[in-house]
Amino acid sequence: MKLQLDPDRLFPADPATRDVASGLYSRVADLPILSPHGHVDPALLLDNTPFGDPSELFIRYDHYVTRLMHAAGVQLSDLGIPDRTTGAAVATPREVWRTFCAHWYLYAGTASGYWLQHAFVEQFGIDLHPSIDNADALFDRIDAALATDAFRPRALFSQFGIEVLATTDDPMDDLATHRALAEDPSFAGRVLPTFRPDAYLNPAAAGWADNVHRLAEWNGSAASSYSGYIDALAGRRRHFVEHGAVSADHGVFQPLAVDLDPSAAAALFDRALAGTLSDDEQRAFAGHMLLEMARMSVDDGLVMTVHPGVLRNHHTDTFTRFGPDTGHDIPATTTYVDSIRPLLQKYGTIPDFHLVLFAVDESVYSREVAPLAGFYPSVYVGAPWWFLDAPDAVLRFRSAVTETAGFYRSSGFIDDTRAFLSIPARHDMARRLDSAFLARLVREGRIDTPTAERIIVDLVDAMPRKVFKL
Amino acid sequence: MKLQLDPDRLFPADPATRDVASGLYSRVADLPILSPHGHVDPALLLDNTPFGDPSELFIRYDHYVTRLMHAAGVQLSDLGIPDRTTGAAVATPREVWRTFCAHWYLYAGTASGYWLQHAFVEQFGIDLHPSIDNADALFDRIDAALATDAFRPRALFSQFGIEVLATTDDPMDDLATHRALAEDPSFAGRVLPTFRPDAYLNPAAAGWADNVHRLAEWNGSAASSYSGYIDALAGRRRHFVEHGAVSADHGVFQPLAVDLDPSAAAALFDRALAGTLSDDEQRAFAGHMLLEMARMSVDDGLVMTVHPGVLRNHHTDTFTRFGPDTGHDIPATTTYVDSIRPLLQKYGTIPDFHLVLFAVDESVYSREVAPLAGFYPSVYVGAPWWFLDAPDAVLRFRSAVTETAGFYRSSGFIDDTRAFLSIPARHDMARRLDSAFLARLVREGRIDTPTAERIIVDLVDAMPRKVFKL
Amino acid sequence: MKLQLDPDRLFPADPATRDVASGLYSRVADLPILSPHGHVDPALLLDNTPFGDPSELFIRYDHYVTRLMHAAGVQLSDLGIPDRTTGAAVATPREVWRTFCAHWYLYAGTASGYWLQHAFVEQFGIDLHPSIDNADALFDRIDAALATDAFRPRALFSQFGIEVLATTDDPMDDLATHRALAEDPSFAGRVLPTFRPDAYLNPAAAGWADNVHRLAEWNGSAASSYSGYIDALAGRRRHFVEHGAVSADHGVFQPLAVDLDPSAAAALFDRALAGTLSDDEQRAFAGHMLLEMARMSVDDGLVMTVHPGVLRNHHTDTFTRFGPDTGHDIPATTTYVDSIRPLLQKYGTIPDFHLVLFAVDESVYSREVAPLAGFYPSVYVGAPWWFLDAPDAVLRFRSAVTETAGFYRSSGFIDDTRAFLSIPARHDMARRLDSAFLARLVREGRIDTPTAERIIVDLVDAMPRKVFKL
Repeated sequence: MKLQLDPDRLFPADPATRDVASGLYSRVADLPILSPHGHVDPALLLDNTPFGDPSELFIRYDHYVTRLMHAAGVQLSDLGIPDRTTGAAVATPREVWRTFCAHWYLYAGTASGYWLQHAFVEQFGIDLHPSIDNADALFDRIDAALATDAFRPRALFSQFGIEVLATTDDPMDDLATHRALAEDPSFAGRVLPTFRPDAYLNPAAAGWADNVHRLAEWNGSAASSYSGYIDALAGRRRHFVEHGAVSADHGVFQPLAVDLDPSAAAALFDRALAGTLSDDEQRAFAGHMLLEMARMSVDDGLVMTVHPGVLRNHHTDTFTRFGPDTGHDIPATTTYVDSIRPLLQKYGTIPDFHLVLFAVDESVYSREVAPLAGFYPSVYVGAPWWFLDAPDAVLRFRSAVTETAGFYRSSGFIDDTRAFLSIPARHDMARRLDSAFLARLVREGRIDTPTAERIIVDLVDAMPRKVFKL
Repeated sequence: MKLQLDPDRLFPADPATRDVASGLYSRVADLPILSPHGHVDPALLLDNTPFGDPSELFIRYDHYVTRLMHAAGVQLSDLGIPDRTTGAAVATPREVWRTFCAHWYLYAGTASGYWLQHAFVEQFGIDLHPSIDNADALFDRIDAALATDAFRPRALFSQFGIEVLATTDDPMDDLATHRALAEDPSFAGRVLPTFRPDAYLNPAAAGWADNVHRLAEWNGSAASSYSGYIDALAGRRRHFVEHGAVSADHGVFQPLAVDLDPSAAAALFDRALAGTLSDDEQRAFAGHMLLEMARMSVDDGLVMTVHPGVLRNHHTDTFTRFGPDTGHDIPATTTYVDSIRPLLQKYGTIPDFHLVLFAVDESVYSREVAPLAGFYPSVYVGAPWWFLDAPDAVLRFRSAVTETAGFYRSSGFIDDTRAFLSIPARHDMARRLDSAFLARLVREGRIDTPTAERIIVDLVDAMPRKVFKL
Repeated sequence: MKLQLDPDRLFPADPATRDVASGLYSRVADLPILSPHGHVDPALLLDNTPFGDPSELFIRYDHYVTRLMHAAGVQLSDLGIPDRTTGAAVATPREVWRTFCAHWYLYAGTASGYWLQHAFVEQFGIDLHPSIDNADALFDRIDAALATDAFRPRALFSQFGIEVLATTDDPMDDLATHRALAEDPSFAGRVLPTFRPDAYLNPAAAGWADNVHRLAEWNGSAASSYSGYIDALAGRRRHFVEHGAVSADHGVFQPLAVDLDPSAAAALFDRALAGTLSDDEQRAFAGHMLLEMARMSVDDGLVMTVHPGVLRNHHTDTFTRFGPDTGHDIPATTTYVDSIRPLLQKYGTIPDFHLVLFAVDESVYSREVAPLAGFYPSVYVGAPWWFLDAPDAVLRFRSAVTETAGFYRSSGFIDDTRAFLSIPARHDMARRLDSAFLARLVREGRIDTPTAERIIVDLVDAMPRKVFKL
């Protein structure tokens, strides 16, 4: 069984439609990659140190990958993830890799399998399905490649054609890494920080009170001062803007916006610090702060992105032992229409305010996100995210939103990845799928070919530049 | 870039399936149009005055069209919609048209774009994509056509092959226009009024108390009399029946039916007039009145249609300035199974009671609407409505409901349009999509061709006649 | 109009994809049937008495079939279902059959129509669409066949290639029929009981208190003893295990698990017997018992299956007159992420605990079920059930879950049928659809043919054996 990449992969089955898709794809296959939201560590590019071993690169830190083996009965410690409660030894990288290769069959038909196969073939020239028999040989092959200059992070950044790469950063990060990268004359890429303040806004978040104190200390204000807290957040956002940030990202369980007057907010803030808020009051304060973030985005121009609807760390024992991002963040029902309304009432029609609404509950795409983006100049439809960033799901998404909102209200593709080597696979996938979707509309007589040719370029290039103010 | 209509548009890509679809479509392409629910003004046909300019015809009153330009940053006043709070001048029709042509690219892939293209090509012979360069020429061309007799409303009614056209009317409308049309020997079409009592049933609706007084005045009963209120509603329904109405339409946020005894209802009615109902009590009274409407439908035979799940006027500032129907009505989650149950408990199996359930939350189609219609003789599956009356959404709908409810529990296509010139485009679209869906089932060996040939005719012709008692 | 079965039915339209699907299907078309969940009466096989008439076989007991005629206005008594409140005569089998044939057109495009057509053609060699004209001839033909030895239940069991057939049984069933069948040297099939304790767990279920008394009596404990109740349930499960049961099935309205300490549970139990629980307390006790069933599954190895989300007996008058299972069980919104969490917190990662999560609300597949099964080693994705066990719905299901959970977290097909003659049609349908789905992925370059060939065999054979511990 040879491992290979079909040059027509992801295109529709019908030959005539496939030809159209192939033609559209050829117009965008080599365009630069714009990645306005993701989780790559900027130090990777500043230091340009070689990647570690194949397991570190592809498995250990990718909870898309580890979770399916966990579901098959593999212990996370056997995938290289240390148990914090025991400190017991974990499997070696080579052992982890063998376990992965033995479970390669689990990934058939999954998004992870698609990306891994892309990277194996394109970047390492592997032409065999991983298996227990070839695990060591594949490990050695990848490991050897990683030691070469061609596989150093900056070389790959260039080879992948990345023009813009946004990272995700703590509001108190000094952004020295970003500054150093920007000032490095030997590196031409744009690596932008992203302001991610969840743990500074929601009193229910772990460490919120500590974060409030850190803000106050930086700001020189009293920790108990609500106005100091607000000033400090605005100040940290300015710091991000000065370092090239274009967006602020908000991960929330429900996208609730609450419009409190400052004195009511200040009262909740005091009681939050005292630890006496009820659950409803915590939600109200967090919802108020989401509205405040919108207000600040109107002021400072940072694009506001909202990623709602994931119940994190569903299995407490696994979280306690192995930490977050270990595969058990589970989507929940999401609704925007009522919850986000106070924010849109205030800021929805302000020029140059950009609000990108993501979802992991697909039912909200046609029902709420597309209609909102089809009216509010501020609202853009976020690309399929997380569990939905996969071929069929992406086509369902385009089908769900396009008829209501057209093509010009969508955000452009977001890879949202921690896995640097998956970036080209993910963007290539998105370009193929948009080509496939457009080709079907052409074949069904709903748009003509010149229109589709314009749209595919705009989806890949013009829209992310516009939406994320790149 | 030529603008044209593919004769095989909306048919499946696979050539063999496409041939089947084309054959099915040819059986219904020219059947008369039955439009049992929509929003055309009957005075248009009585007076038969020429349509205004292209902007009035295609843009100004079509919030499907204006909302996408608004989302792109165009002010509603620049689309000819006056700002009620300032009374400032609005753009001229030609300016509106130019703005629209400059934004034509926004509509690619949308339902509105599909309908507009159909009308431009079929009705005006336009063969260019609208653009800022040809905007004036297109304006002049359409404007000139509108001045000809062939484009007078009655001529188009006849040219479109409309047999029945239902309007949507206020319960206190005297229906003189309908009467005059029906008595006009020079007009052969059937134009039927529809009883739309929302603002007379829901104490939370603007103007409810005034409407109650108008009913009482007409009825000669005391405004404070609940029994007089009920009598008056029944009387107004009789007035509609006498003028040819076949249905009563109910737009509700949630399809809640509440079974109150008359004394409890009367007590709520009194307090509603006094303005002292809580939100829950308002909902309870409105839910009770939905049940009363079902009871009256059982008595007088009007088909009951329910259009739930839209949060109207989401952006209050836009509503205040530009009024309703300006593009920011947003769908919300809908559920029928519990909420409508009291109504079905009482009337669900009454012979000749027809209840058509619509939805804008697609998840309810397979989960609730098809199962309800697959048991209750009264319940019919409403055709995709509003944001879902588009090609992909219609096919998703058929896929969602057919396997549970078959083809003979669906309402037939509903155009629900305010845009007279879009009527043939919409019905043609529905006929093509039903042909495409049936062709796929034929090609997959699930039904045979003669069965599909019978069904396509029944969907277009027999079902709306039966469901709406035409 | 000839009635026939297309050998390529349910395969994709595109010829190249169809060829792949056909090749995959040929590998599994003749594999033995594994049916780990259904509702066939085991006495049918023990007694091996001939089936009754065509109406009894295909109509009277199949509420999938009766409900569509009821929706078309046919009285249930005219379909052979007696009215318990009047005791009035019901239609004769031949009359019922004539009514059915006259309404055959209703089933075009439905799952029931597909299965019926399969049985008519494959098992009775019928080559005409049923109609009022041929109703008597078809009745006689089927009736004559049923009188032959080839149509006795055991002969069909063998002819259908059934290897395992699970029934659904009351916890107090002595399982004598299963024991007799297992000990019958002339019958080689495996017919396994399934423990179905809903009416013993939920105080809101009809007969719960009586069932508690029956448990206590069997167990020799006091009826008022909570620990005796728990012991008795564990004992009855052991009885099922000793008679070959592999699973316990749980039909719940919402899949709520509640973790109560034993004293709190015992207090609710006492008050449940006294009839003084509030609705919330009833739900809490039932939720606690769901958790207890999981604990017992961990102990005794029975696979735990959860079928949530159906509001049973929606129309009370029909229930009163004609009993349960008469076509008005209606799905409702379902969510797992929060409600099942306490169960997964405790038992989700226990080795050898298997929990199969079904759904009738499709939105939960991609949002919750696939993510849960993609992490928890215990969780498997239940096959589409009830209203969703139909061609399009099955393909939507595969599309919704595969990209997140792969192919190796799904349960294998579940026919869940009461209609013995539909078993081969349903399993054949599932095999064709999985072949069609895989063929599309092959054609789109997402998996290669050898991988698809392995997966199709595993889906049909290895997965149900593994998931249900066959």
